Amino acid sequence: MRELMAATGGEDVVYLGDSARVPYGTKSLDTVRRFALEDAAFLMQFEPKLLVVACNTASAAAIDVVRERIDVGVVDVIAPGSAAAVEAADGMIGVIATEATIASGAYQRAIDELAPGREVIAAACPLLVPIVEEGRDQDDPIVLHVLGDYLRHLQRARPGALILGCTHYPLLSGAIGKLMGPEVELISSARAAAMTVRDRLAETGLASTRADRGTLRCFTTDNAERFAKLAERFGGCRIDDVTFVGVDELEIPAETARQ
Amino acid sequence: MRELMAATGGEDVVYLGDSARVPYGTKSLDTVRRFALEDAAFLMQFEPKLLVVACNTASAAAIDVVRERIDVGVVDVIAPGSAAAVEAADGMIGVIATEATIASGAYQRAIDELAPGREVIAAACPLLVPIVEEGRDQDDPIVLHVLGDYLRHLQRARPGALILGCTHYPLLSGAIGKLMGPEVELISSARAAAMTVRDRLAETGLASTRADRGTLRCFTTDNAERFAKLAERFGGCRIDDVTFVGVDELEIPAETARQ
Repeated sequence: MRELMAATGGEDVVYLGDSARVPYGTKSLDTVRRFALEDAAFLMQFEPKLLVVACNTASAAAIDVVRERIDVGVVDVIAPGSAAAVEAADGMIGVIATEATIASGAYQRAIDELAPGREVIAAACPLLVPIVEEGRDQDDPIVLHVLGDYLRHLQRARPGALILGCTHYPLLSGAIGKLMGPEVELISSARAAAMTVRDRLAETGLASTRADRGTLRCFTTDNAERFAKLAERFGGCRIDDVTFVGVDELEIPAETARQ
Repeated sequence: MRELMAATGGEDVVYLGDSARVPYGTKSLDTVRRFALEDAAFLMQFEPKLLVVACNTASAAAIDVVRERIDVGVVDVIAPGSAAAVEAADGMIGVIATEATIASGAYQRAIDELAPGREVIAAACPLLVPIVEEGRDQDDPIVLHVLGDYLRHLQRARPGALILGCTHYPLLSGAIGKLMGPEVELISSARAAAMTVRDRLAETGLASTRADRGTLRCFTTDNAERFAKLAERFGGCRIDDVTFVGVDELEIPAETARQ
């Protein structure tokens, strides 16, 4: 959301955070697919120009089925992140992401399509999301210990680029960069996806031409106050317009989407 | 579930694991309350003799509203765990649990009712659930590092008893015991709740009198295979009868329960 608003200043954004059912990254792909379809169907009521699946796990599990069922352009985070990594460096590419994203093989496939035969080393890092959500900062000894554990093989393998394949990981990019060394290019899927959105809107003539900043409306399935607090840490700005929406409200349009 | 089946050999048990929406411990109390009511309403279709809210966070958030809406005896894990701690030792009682459980103040209130004025030191330990679910064992250096961080104040405070106020924590009881020392009595809410169930069934004349073991039926809202694997680690036995139930199926009886 932060990268998107930076890249496309004049666009109105509607954001849904399914906080009541997160994390998606430790769930089965079937469950994530069902949730992602419901989330997408909910957002369609706002008649967006473009839908962004701004979660790596949801992109990995559900992008095909969302594209199939949703009647608007859909941008994911995995294809843009993979393209950015392939362009950023030669040689091996590292990917760190949730269990579900890694298990899906989505990054491996996307990189192989763009650069056939390029070696990919993937590591699932299940504790990083809860560590970020707990609010630990990057020089916390536990953060460094856990990162050191997950990155051990990648440090030895010395990839040209390392994809931070989860929305939460860029908040640890300082520590990850220190552990991996300056010669490893860190790739944020979020920034790459935001650039894709900007380009896609420009190509299709759908980009807003107004000069003032767009509006942001946020919905969450859990507590709006808690959401605002977390969003402040992630987005770096105060978000006041947060509306609660029950998960049962999500499930009605999903039924329709399924038909 | 393991403690319950050990304490009440001849009873049939129906278990629902809301795996698609866990963890509950990082969500707001409102959301946990809604989920717990839905879970309870789902289980009522099996016409149980007794309903056990076998999750500390759900007990903390929802026990009153579940008791109010559900027309059968309800056993929680917080009252039995608190009673066991009060009996086990004099002096201060420590509680470790999820963010939501600690924030609810449920253990603090329950202990104060049983032993007015007894000092309680509570510590939220948000990373312990994901650490256990990741499958790390008790001598993993990260497990010891994280436990050391959470238990620092409790080690200095030297409580007489420490309540392991989350289903997952007894899997780390070896490491917790080593860090706290042998003079601190570790209290498993699960065992205490299972004893309460056994006593309640005996008192009300509802206990099964048959000699052979009862049956176990499990339902999960996520992937049945994943559930079986995790249940094996927690329960120490193979569970074959696991049925998937969609979260949307949970939400229908919940609507009824709300009316």
